[in-house]
Amino acid sequence: MRKEVLELNVSLLSSVSVVGKKESEGPLGSLFDLRDEDDRFGGKTWEEGESEMQRLAFNTLLAKSGCEDRDIDALFAGDLQNQCVGSAYGLLNFDLPYFGLYGACSTCTEGLILASMALVGGCELCGVVTSSHNCVAERQYRSPIEYGSQRAPTAQWTVTGAGAFLLGKEEGKVRLVRGCPGRVIEMGICDLSNMGAAMAPAALDTLLRFFKATGKRPEDYDRIVTGDLGFEGGAILQDLMRADGVPLGRRYSDCGQLIYDRVLQDVHAGGSGCGCSAVVLSAYYLPKLQSGELRRILFLSTGAMMSPDSIKQGKAIPAIAHLVELEAPNL
Amino acid sequence: MRKEVLELNVSLLSSVSVVGKKESEGPLGSLFDLRDEDDRFGGKTWEEGESEMQRLAFNTLLAKSGCEDRDIDALFAGDLQNQCVGSAYGLLNFDLPYFGLYGACSTCTEGLILASMALVGGCELCGVVTSSHNCVAERQYRSPIEYGSQRAPTAQWTVTGAGAFLLGKEEGKVRLVRGCPGRVIEMGICDLSNMGAAMAPAALDTLLRFFKATGKRPEDYDRIVTGDLGFEGGAILQDLMRADGVPLGRRYSDCGQLIYDRVLQDVHAGGSGCGCSAVVLSAYYLPKLQSGELRRILFLSTGAMMSPDSIKQGKAIPAIAHLVELEAPNL
Repeated sequence: MRKEVLELNVSLLSSVSVVGKKESEGPLGSLFDLRDEDDRFGGKTWEEGESEMQRLAFNTLLAKSGCEDRDIDALFAGDLQNQCVGSAYGLLNFDLPYFGLYGACSTCTEGLILASMALVGGCELCGVVTSSHNCVAERQYRSPIEYGSQRAPTAQWTVTGAGAFLLGKEEGKVRLVRGCPGRVIEMGICDLSNMGAAMAPAALDTLLRFFKATGKRPEDYDRIVTGDLGFEGGAILQDLMRADGVPLGRRYSDCGQLIYDRVLQDVHAGGSGCGCSAVVLSAYYLPKLQSGELRRILFLSTGAMMSPDSIKQGKAIPAIAHLVELEAPNL
Repeated sequence: MRKEVLELNVSLLSSVSVVGKKESEGPLGSLFDLRDEDDRFGGKTWEEGESEMQRLAFNTLLAKSGCEDRDIDALFAGDLQNQCVGSAYGLLNFDLPYFGLYGACSTCTEGLILASMALVGGCELCGVVTSSHNCVAERQYRSPIEYGSQRAPTAQWTVTGAGAFLLGKEEGKVRLVRGCPGRVIEMGICDLSNMGAAMAPAALDTLLRFFKATGKRPEDYDRIVTGDLGFEGGAILQDLMRADGVPLGRRYSDCGQLIYDRVLQDVHAGGSGCGCSAVVLSAYYLPKLQSGELRRILFLSTGAMMSPDSIKQGKAIPAIAHLVELEAPNL
């Protein structure tokens, strides 16, 4: 029988968040490390802009942590673009062993778990970089933003942002204690404008497996945070957890609900995208854990792994949620 | 300073290859485990066919190795479809922690390295599944096969095939001794019909780093095998290695050159795709290693990580090559 939960015990040494204009104007705006006024980051195309966000995020991470790319054993990276080219081009100029990932919006915690496993397996330093870009994602998955298509109330707003993380074994930093990799779950949701509903059952599955395997309860954590279920999916997850007798209550929150002002910024069901959980983890949760304001949290990035073509072919949306348990230093 | 080469020392316990009609008619045809006469594998679409290949490959792997999905700690999978949906749908029905990968045609060895690192990090059994499908890839990257577009002499033929591998620690099986993860290399090649030229420099980079780090020479290996450089890229790699004073000579071979009969099957520069190196490794090289006919080989899957859109936007093709060193049992 397999271990559902991996004991990892590594440290999140440093992180960087890079965001676009809308994100910098949101409630967390002042917390992000870097922002851009036109979301192009000096690129000719939105796609170049997304790659530049990744390059900026990782470059700043190296500067911030005072190490060079040749000190890092491996880089785990991914994004939402077809063939993950946002990462391939963005990180091209670094001299680094590269593992390309595709976990849709779950890529941030997928990368954190794989980087931690690499450290347990003997590596010294590993990097994780993920990103998403609103204009790139809307054009690829739905329709170009220039069309001004009306959005459904359950639709989410893909975050323009990139997060970069450096993981190692040094003490005194936020600890990544355990990981619980997600399973692919598909519950029949076919609506591209309601990914929260497609992803909520995946978050449920991972949380229930984690609590069963560890004997922990939601009360053991200061926060239980999902990546981008948004308002729709977040409410569904809370209903499902309550129905399973494991209510999350007030300790539940979601990065997609935190990153925008729902009233002032017209984002409907909240934020989404690989960049969403990455920048909120980096800018909002890691500092609270480092300072001890939060002592222990569960953090799950959630991903909807369909493609536009699979939806046209009548397939439902498969989803996944990877969980990491994070702890304040010296607990 | 990082270790360029990872000491892994795990075993390839079992593997399965599933191929389409053209592959089953090639020189290795009789060696593959499963084949289909119309490349749809009972699916309504080519995409469903590819997912079914993955399901068949992994299901057969479980049967062959006498274990159940709940015995396996994690599954590493990927393919060439947008958002890697071939794997997401194909492996949906297995009860398994799932790590989605995107390494283009390098995904096979990317998965083998990550699965091995997971084993070193404490897992007991890990699976790797990768696939490609000719009709799916041609429609997505170039043009639907129904158009009958003329192909360039340097163009390769995407293999319809899926390979599945089970890795563990048990002795007496083919050993995966070391891994050398690739770096993203881009040398200015923009021609979608000449991916061999784009990928050869990535294979060169990985091989040179591996030989430098280990002090080994090509003469130390019975074979040095690339995944899908084909005839064009394979010749370029041999020229480049010779120019660097490390000629590969007759011990060099390429899965894309082996899988089809170049004269009788009209595949121009040879086979390619995530499935190419996976099925040739499973059906051709692993048995030769298991029997001791080959004692020690270097195996590199090579990937071209562009997207059709990045090419339209004038970007060159980034490539990567992940290397594993494989050894006969009890050496």
